[in-house]
Amino acid sequence: MSGAPTVPAGAGGPWLSLCREVAGDIHHALAELPTRAEREQPAGRGQGGDDTVAIDIAAERAMERRLEALHATGVDLVLVSEELGERVFGERPAWRVVVDPIDGSVNAKRLIPFFALSVAVATGPAMGDIVFGYVHDFGSGEEWVAERGKGAWLDGLPLDCAGPKEEIELLSLEATLTEYVAARVEAFRDLAPRLRIMGSLALSLCQLAAGRVDAVVSLRPIRSVDIAAAQLLVRERGLSIELPDAGPLDEAPLDVTARSRVVAGRTPGDCARLARALLL
Amino acid sequence: MSGAPTVPAGAGGPWLSLCREVAGDIHHALAELPTRAEREQPAGRGQGGDDTVAIDIAAERAMERRLEALHATGVDLVLVSEELGERVFGERPAWRVVVDPIDGSVNAKRLIPFFALSVAVATGPAMGDIVFGYVHDFGSGEEWVAERGKGAWLDGLPLDCAGPKEEIELLSLEATLTEYVAARVEAFRDLAPRLRIMGSLALSLCQLAAGRVDAVVSLRPIRSVDIAAAQLLVRERGLSIELPDAGPLDEAPLDVTARSRVVAGRTPGDCARLARALLL
Repeated sequence: MSGAPTVPAGAGGPWLSLCREVAGDIHHALAELPTRAEREQPAGRGQGGDDTVAIDIAAERAMERRLEALHATGVDLVLVSEELGERVFGERPAWRVVVDPIDGSVNAKRLIPFFALSVAVATGPAMGDIVFGYVHDFGSGEEWVAERGKGAWLDGLPLDCAGPKEEIELLSLEATLTEYVAARVEAFRDLAPRLRIMGSLALSLCQLAAGRVDAVVSLRPIRSVDIAAAQLLVRERGLSIELPDAGPLDEAPLDVTARSRVVAGRTPGDCARLARALLL
Repeated sequence: MSGAPTVPAGAGGPWLSLCREVAGDIHHALAELPTRAEREQPAGRGQGGDDTVAIDIAAERAMERRLEALHATGVDLVLVSEELGERVFGERPAWRVVVDPIDGSVNAKRLIPFFALSVAVATGPAMGDIVFGYVHDFGSGEEWVAERGKGAWLDGLPLDCAGPKEEIELLSLEATLTEYVAARVEAFRDLAPRLRIMGSLALSLCQLAAGRVDAVVSLRPIRSVDIAAAQLLVRERGLSIELPDAGPLDEAPLDVTARSRVVAGRTPGDCARLARALLL
């Protein structure tokens, strides 16, 4: 990526307002699609390989419109999104905006109040280039924000509560297919006495950042868009997150290819134990 | 139980206001215990056998105070609650008020926004005597209400959306211990392609009533207080719920003894298939 950033790097301010506007847009789009039948209306297949439905499209269009407006003020950028893949705005993109418009799509379609907008902003092509992360929970209304090197916030307040427990009590599994759970759950029996399967990886990672769960595992390979924002919350809290089927997290390309399962916990040691259980 | 009801049976009105007041009280109590450390503070063991913590006590005391006030207006009743067991108000109790002050206690302690107040009102000692059910979701703020023979409501509007899918897509498992899931999940592999483990049985049953999930199974024996309110929502929607380890649901005593696991789905046939999987 070339070109000098024209929005102050790391300030969060302009990106935060943009993200909040998009969250508001998606709230409206959801209100206009109030039933399961409307939300489940098929609309093709996303670049990430998942079936796309009406709410995914509506949410992604909201993001595109806000980025078009930002671009019109002179900011060049690349949008990376689950549904459309990549879209370049301008000739000298200084920013890479990595979006999962609706993380927890099955929950959103079925009106289960646990799904999120996830937006990460990077100054380069890899996970380690992310400087800003934003996750908005459409169920609880909670807003999760992180800035690299500056910390993490929940609803505008520094996230400084107790972190995950030293002894794992609660493990959040993602990848909601029964067959994955059946194939793997035995391996976690001695690692974690209690389970959650909530249906949104971004939100599960935010729960980890707040010490609400003690570990998170995705049983199927995830895309960078799925974790780009929330991984920054996890790391700004001093916690660990790794890709056991790929190289170092910082080197993961910010695209929509599913490359690795993911493990996250309090320490690198926790991640190693979770990864061993996955690979058993 | 003897004595003529002095609050109009089935009208819901006075019970609904009382429940809303208690939900408000619990909101305040939660705000005064904002951290995991405060909420997890041990406070003995409930009559239902679970460990009791500070928020359970605070929530139950809120319920007791509101019932004391109601009793002072001349209404005799019995309170049945997870933590205290039974408490009789007056000599001629016409009502049995069955309460789980915090359903989803682990979520509440850990600040995961998915737990509920559950209140059922009965005119007799068994599940079939329940005439009113109320569930308040402290995460989403949703209010679920049912009146026997009159229907079910979500946030004040009749719950008339599409119900669960004919082909089970999403199964909500409750009883969050990893060992129970490990022991049982294989049996559900062919019954349901996707799983949730959300951590609140009352809310999972409400999600079923709204067609957000297609089936619910508790892998461990539950108490009547856990399902008393939500089972009325399920049944007012014409859906099925059964206790595979006990007799007919209507005959289940409204107490705090754990007697049976529970299965719920669109039809009695769904319940039979879920029960078979449980008993495999």
